[in-house]
Amino acid sequence: MSSRPVDPVSNLRTLIQCPSVTPAEGGALDALAAMLAPLKFEIERPVFTEAGTPDIENLYARYGRTGPHLMFAGHTDVVPVGDDAVWSHPPFSADIQDGLMFGRGAVDMKGGIACFVAALARHLEANGTLPGSISFLITGDEEGPALNGSVKLLKWAAERGERWDACILGEPTNPEALGDMIKIGRRGSLSATVVIKGVQGHVAYPHFADNPVRSAVQMATGLLSPSLDEGTPDFQPTNLEITSIDTGNSAVNVIPGKTTLSFNVRFNDLWTPDSLKRELERRLERAAAMRTLHSGERKGSALYEVLWKEQPSQAFLTHDETLIRIVKEAVAAVTGRSPALSTSGGTSDARFIKDYCPVVEFGLVGKTMHMVDENVAIEDLETLTEIYGQMIRNWFASK
Amino acid sequence: MSSRPVDPVSNLRTLIQCPSVTPAEGGALDALAAMLAPLKFEIERPVFTEAGTPDIENLYARYGRTGPHLMFAGHTDVVPVGDDAVWSHPPFSADIQDGLMFGRGAVDMKGGIACFVAALARHLEANGTLPGSISFLITGDEEGPALNGSVKLLKWAAERGERWDACILGEPTNPEALGDMIKIGRRGSLSATVVIKGVQGHVAYPHFADNPVRSAVQMATGLLSPSLDEGTPDFQPTNLEITSIDTGNSAVNVIPGKTTLSFNVRFNDLWTPDSLKRELERRLERAAAMRTLHSGERKGSALYEVLWKEQPSQAFLTHDETLIRIVKEAVAAVTGRSPALSTSGGTSDARFIKDYCPVVEFGLVGKTMHMVDENVAIEDLETLTEIYGQMIRNWFASK
Repeated sequence: MSSRPVDPVSNLRTLIQCPSVTPAEGGALDALAAMLAPLKFEIERPVFTEAGTPDIENLYARYGRTGPHLMFAGHTDVVPVGDDAVWSHPPFSADIQDGLMFGRGAVDMKGGIACFVAALARHLEANGTLPGSISFLITGDEEGPALNGSVKLLKWAAERGERWDACILGEPTNPEALGDMIKIGRRGSLSATVVIKGVQGHVAYPHFADNPVRSAVQMATGLLSPSLDEGTPDFQPTNLEITSIDTGNSAVNVIPGKTTLSFNVRFNDLWTPDSLKRELERRLERAAAMRTLHSGERKGSALYEVLWKEQPSQAFLTHDETLIRIVKEAVAAVTGRSPALSTSGGTSDARFIKDYCPVVEFGLVGKTMHMVDENVAIEDLETLTEIYGQMIRNWFASK
Repeated sequence: MSSRPVDPVSNLRTLIQCPSVTPAEGGALDALAAMLAPLKFEIERPVFTEAGTPDIENLYARYGRTGPHLMFAGHTDVVPVGDDAVWSHPPFSADIQDGLMFGRGAVDMKGGIACFVAALARHLEANGTLPGSISFLITGDEEGPALNGSVKLLKWAAERGERWDACILGEPTNPEALGDMIKIGRRGSLSATVVIKGVQGHVAYPHFADNPVRSAVQMATGLLSPSLDEGTPDFQPTNLEITSIDTGNSAVNVIPGKTTLSFNVRFNDLWTPDSLKRELERRLERAAAMRTLHSGERKGSALYEVLWKEQPSQAFLTHDETLIRIVKEAVAAVTGRSPALSTSGGTSDARFIKDYCPVVEFGLVGKTMHMVDENVAIEDLETLTEIYGQMIRNWFASK
């Protein structure tokens, strides 16, 4: 009988039962440390702080002292459960029914951690050691503001001399079934709020007023079309969504003096945040210059201010073909399926990791993530453990 | 020495010193009744009520028992003073400085009432009697919801058998100087809020969502252009203003599920409220049918609901050429100026009166109405009294 964490189901049950809703550690990192300790990991538990945000616990654990060095990255924090009365199983119970384990974080992404730990434990049990190093870089601040998580943990480790050759991030990447999709990059994200100023007045005297909503509508139209690009072989087309327009004028006989317009862009690697900002500012300027008075006359330019949200994330694509091939072949060997290489979806901590080493994302099926009754198929846990095992073997073999 | 109210300055001082901010009577109707009583008016003071609104005092006073019958209409209620500390003279003081009398209601429209009372008192003093009747129809609910004001007062009087041949409404009609403008009709007003429904989702997965702001922008564009009409010889072009768009989504990574769009139209007599609603509904339907998905693909129609505000007001034009000529000639004779015949500006109680008799509006200079330091030139009070005197003489002479 081994005390080693070779069973992903047992590992995941332990992790789910820790109520680690961001920013709470909830015992999840302690539990992970307890799994890794018997495997002879050196374990660090740095806590990062930032004025105005809660302190966050993190974990960095390394096995081995030599290269090559593979990082497994992820997070133990989970999103809130919402109304737990509507869950068919308590969200931190890890109940199993009909081959599914239920619980917040089951797929996003305690499941990925549970499987990687199991895969590594099995590898060490079978081989005694590794021809290099493996590190776990696990944060408790991925679902929150992400200020005290991976971005600081990477910097902290790098300052201590840690260098990595590649990273596997265990986020749920598969839309429908295990083997659907590997993520080899991510689109960037850029947000702004435009404040458009007019002149307030009575609707019956529009020539004494200047309605900023007219300009907001023209600016929205200018931002939305034409399309920013048609996409690339690796990326979807860049997409802009107007997320909110807010005037807040409840008086039907008043022309408002101000309105705001907010938007978010998910962009591919045809753009940098700076080149995209320039293009959008050009579009806004052109739309503002089309300011139309109530009479239909065009006059002057709308007064506006663009407030860019801080820290846009850059689009990136992983160019480590060996890493991509190894992950893809491991998936294919275990599932018999040929995963898509994708850059779709939202952002992830890969946007921070890519500055330190090539990163590829593969994990469970994301269908139930963030939802009531988040769950994972028990069968998938065993399959993902096998895939991660193949990746570990083949990656070290390739070095 | 006469106790008769022949001095418009004294009349106005008395009225301004009554703090009659809607819905308060403030002593203003009592003061007016006290001026009219010595002139042998029969005075009624009906109070109208409506569930959920304050009771409102009104005044109806008639001189004479035979036709022809001229109505003078107006209101003694005034808009709030705002921060009275920023007034250079207390707002109910009626202080005179540099030829100006200061006070809330000075021009809108206690001044008009003060002058008409003086003109009539002078006429009776000079002539002993009138070849017909004159009535004052004065409400205390013009600046408020207007539910318990002219609309009920007219109905109440008509039910008692009152019939009028013409009406002069004493609202401030002159933009800059006495003699600028007579109002011979008013545009109609129609308001609505459009609720546009989409499907909420994550901005990174727009194909799982349907952004209602896209449709709102297309609907706003469709409402704004092309122009609804080019105006008529008597009316400005119909004008639509988007008064507010409100989404209320503060999450930059969320596509909202709903947004609202509110608008108001000031329309001329090319439209009825019904024909205008039909045209706007057609425009909304066409814009909704252009619903564009994030991919640029057009698909289905946006889901939306139009909530029309109750009680649109109809556009109207006064066709009593004799009445218009008499008012115009009186203005020209006293001021030497040729007033514009206009239908511009907001709505007024003329929209109710026009259902009972032809109505023309003429009063003081509106420049300071609703503002801090509302004031009237003492000289204008004397001039307007002379104009109203001419109107009374000439109107009865024309019958």
